[in-house]
Amino acid sequence: MYDGIVQELIDELGRLPGIGPKSAQRIAFHILQTPTFDVSRLSELLREVRERVSFCEICGNVSESEICSICRDPRRNAELICVVEDAKDVAAIERTREFRGRYHVLGGAISPIAGIGPDDLRIQQLMTRLADGTVQEVILATNPNLEGEATAAYLSRLLTTLDIAVSRLASGLPVGGDLEYADEVTLGRAFEGRRRL
Amino acid sequence: MYDGIVQELIDELGRLPGIGPKSAQRIAFHILQTPTFDVSRLSELLREVRERVSFCEICGNVSESEICSICRDPRRNAELICVVEDAKDVAAIERTREFRGRYHVLGGAISPIAGIGPDDLRIQQLMTRLADGTVQEVILATNPNLEGEATAAYLSRLLTTLDIAVSRLASGLPVGGDLEYADEVTLGRAFEGRRRL
Repeated sequence: MYDGIVQELIDELGRLPGIGPKSAQRIAFHILQTPTFDVSRLSELLREVRERVSFCEICGNVSESEICSICRDPRRNAELICVVEDAKDVAAIERTREFRGRYHVLGGAISPIAGIGPDDLRIQQLMTRLADGTVQEVILATNPNLEGEATAAYLSRLLTTLDIAVSRLASGLPVGGDLEYADEVTLGRAFEGRRRL
Repeated sequence: MYDGIVQELIDELGRLPGIGPKSAQRIAFHILQTPTFDVSRLSELLREVRERVSFCEICGNVSESEICSICRDPRRNAELICVVEDAKDVAAIERTREFRGRYHVLGGAISPIAGIGPDDLRIQQLMTRLADGTVQEVILATNPNLEGEATAAYLSRLLTTLDIAVSRLASGLPVGGDLEYADEVTLGRAFEGRRRL
């Protein structure tokens, strides 16, 4: 629709997740029409990120070095490992500032439909980490959905053979949410997990 | 939240229109985790678009050359000019394949609130184009909103001094839409502009 290269940029932007043709067009024109927008910085960052960033050899989190800043930090509790599906989950948990242990990123969840089995996840690496007896507790923080629950159940079974405490993040009503609008499953979980005051 | 450069990319992506912090994070991780995504192509296009693409000296549309492909095309009717606010509108009209004339991109609409007056738009350039008497009709295709209507009214008054037909795109019910869900203003316009069958 547009002269060559503008259309090419729109097409390429449209391949990014969550960006449809309309958004891609809007972004392309923003880049074209905003002299203050530093396009060379974005262009450079895209290239650099791919070149310089990879994944931590220990926990699988994104990292600019072989070992990520969390695994390198001696103030983080090495006896506590929080198992998550994705590096994005690490960032979400870090934002809470509640957790001072370390992480293990699985790289997904068990999903027979998507053809993802235990061997496709970083489970073997987790078992290796647990082998030396340092870790006292594993918190299973996979998503509270079908795949995440299946993965947590699988790991929990696997870990019974070791002398390590295994826990699962609490399910319940979201804080600030409205009971009226909670779905039945969440409300059910909230009852199940009720705490004596 | 993330190691340096990843967060920098997320921040930079978040400055694009319509991309919030969550989408920016999702895009950054997509770029990191998808080996098949050709990051160098996007990186290159961003730079090239800004270097190579500018605006047509005649109509103000985006163009890789001084004169855009539409203004250069001898098959396009030079007697008919469609005035639009933005280059994106040119693309939208071209998609209809209904219009075979040429365009004039104003670069916005008159908006006292945003501090945009007639002098901030490419109105002088339009008058210069109309001066040689080639153009027989000007179609005002500014948006059917407050600013667009004000701009059309302003131009229509300005053009009465010239011997040129001036028209405005029809307002009315969108095709495929439902009368029940039309807003009052649109429905009123549809009555006003009703055609005898």
